[in-house]
Amino acid sequence: MNRSAAPIGVFDSGVGGLSVLRELLRLLPDERYLYLGDSARVPYGSKSPETVQLFARQCARFLADQQVKLIVVACNTASAVALEAVQAEVDVPVIGVIGPAAQAAVRATRSGQIGVIGTRATVNSGAYSRAIQRLDAAVSVHSQPCPLFVPVVEEGWTDHLSTRLIAQEYLTALFPPSNGNGSHLPTPIDTLVLGCTHYPLLKPLLHELLPGVELIDCGEHAAHIARQQLLAQNGLAPARPRNDHRLPADVRFYLTDIPPTFVPIAERFLGFQVNLVERVEIDHLCAQEVRLHSSPPGIPPIRPAAVA
Amino acid sequence: MNRSAAPIGVFDSGVGGLSVLRELLRLLPDERYLYLGDSARVPYGSKSPETVQLFARQCARFLADQQVKLIVVACNTASAVALEAVQAEVDVPVIGVIGPAAQAAVRATRSGQIGVIGTRATVNSGAYSRAIQRLDAAVSVHSQPCPLFVPVVEEGWTDHLSTRLIAQEYLTALFPPSNGNGSHLPTPIDTLVLGCTHYPLLKPLLHELLPGVELIDCGEHAAHIARQQLLAQNGLAPARPRNDHRLPADVRFYLTDIPPTFVPIAERFLGFQVNLVERVEIDHLCAQEVRLHSSPPGIPPIRPAAVA
Repeated sequence: MNRSAAPIGVFDSGVGGLSVLRELLRLLPDERYLYLGDSARVPYGSKSPETVQLFARQCARFLADQQVKLIVVACNTASAVALEAVQAEVDVPVIGVIGPAAQAAVRATRSGQIGVIGTRATVNSGAYSRAIQRLDAAVSVHSQPCPLFVPVVEEGWTDHLSTRLIAQEYLTALFPPSNGNGSHLPTPIDTLVLGCTHYPLLKPLLHELLPGVELIDCGEHAAHIARQQLLAQNGLAPARPRNDHRLPADVRFYLTDIPPTFVPIAERFLGFQVNLVERVEIDHLCAQEVRLHSSPPGIPPIRPAAVA
Repeated sequence: MNRSAAPIGVFDSGVGGLSVLRELLRLLPDERYLYLGDSARVPYGSKSPETVQLFARQCARFLADQQVKLIVVACNTASAVALEAVQAEVDVPVIGVIGPAAQAAVRATRSGQIGVIGTRATVNSGAYSRAIQRLDAAVSVHSQPCPLFVPVVEEGWTDHLSTRLIAQEYLTALFPPSNGNGSHLPTPIDTLVLGCTHYPLLKPLLHELLPGVELIDCGEHAAHIARQQLLAQNGLAPARPRNDHRLPADVRFYLTDIPPTFVPIAERFLGFQVNLVERVEIDHLCAQEVRLHSSPPGIPPIRPAAVA
């Protein structure tokens, strides 16, 4: 069965994956898209791998049930800790954002020192280090979680002075001031992976703080891999007529919660007007493998030593 | 049945409610506590009222099933939008944090101008304005959402320069610089409700930025109301022997997700060591009144106008 007319499914914990969707729309404008944001349970980046795996499987199951031809895990945290779980869950080809960004970073680096910034869950997973070193074992990877970048982007404070201070604090570990005791690295980091789909909105600030450092936007590279994947499965959508150079976007938005801030934030990410959004429920999908229970008998209550 | 030996149930979207638990432990040290943090779905403050209502009912149902004698909704967002839904869900007395803080603020103000800071959901709900004006219609209430305060507190950056800048930005609307065009208020705000359970950790900074302004910590006042409620139902726990002036804490911690950051953040809130935490699942409790479905036939896909 030729499924080229079927939509591409894209999911994220919330709005961040819209930066990936934007790149998909640029590269593959003739496709139809279903975008699912798990906004009822956003964010994933501060949660445990087990919980993110369950949530990501539920997102993928929902999209697979809509007969998508390809699933793009447009979330670094889910790609880092749940890609295999998602691939096992559904019969549809699944691509994440980490492999494509790792490839791009290895191609870009001259110094052999790559920095990776992301959520705590992404960094703790070590997924970028593994992906990069599988491609080139001689490359060193230096990671830094930047948990406050997501909320400042969602607040729209991408050029606020406080955001600059936050960025300086986080980046000092990877890019030590050159007039101090010098870097601990033999050669400086020349390539920085933006390992969270919110971070492309901080590109202007990061370019300014890190002149000469190549910034890797995972969405851009994931879109190329998506195109390759569709070519390989003979699944590219037929070209649609366009009467000018602007791209018609055929996107259906699903959210697990519709907060009042979604539309303005989504428009900031996408750069076009978002009209209709549909709320869906996914937490009943994919029974947990290990069902958890409260209060197994015999476990004594916790008695912390003392309150000062 | 005298239920004085039963525990008190306390719930929050995550760790913020620990600032309320701390006040309960100070005032009612002889009680046993079950603390539930819905860390798999944290935060609530950026989500829609409907979603917060469902989550809060599930939290309360879990605690009621553990035979608690009283439920404290230790979350401003849930208290603001879901207190009635929670009270309808369970047969146990339920108290929130908004009523107690509103009473304290009305008692404290001399100028008749009260400021309220909280999450976007709490501020948008208007719950504080209603609660305060029900007590004293002559008092004016001025609200400001401060969405970045929760993530900076969770990051532990309570005295970082970026946090000071964030606070100045948010507070300017309530406390305009006196050497500028002057305040728009006839008399200045003299009382500020910390309408989010994370904010007490910012008290030192807020005291410094707002000298002379009375800060209302909702946990402190909720603890007093909890004590009154237990006295009224003849449900105070009998005194337990103590051999010094430190308070023994009898708390059992339940979380819907156990992220690696929970213990250090919890210890920052509570000021004592947290040892055992149990993971529980609550999202199967309380069926949604309106079951949501995906893709009802006949709804056309969304076609945003164009991608630039």
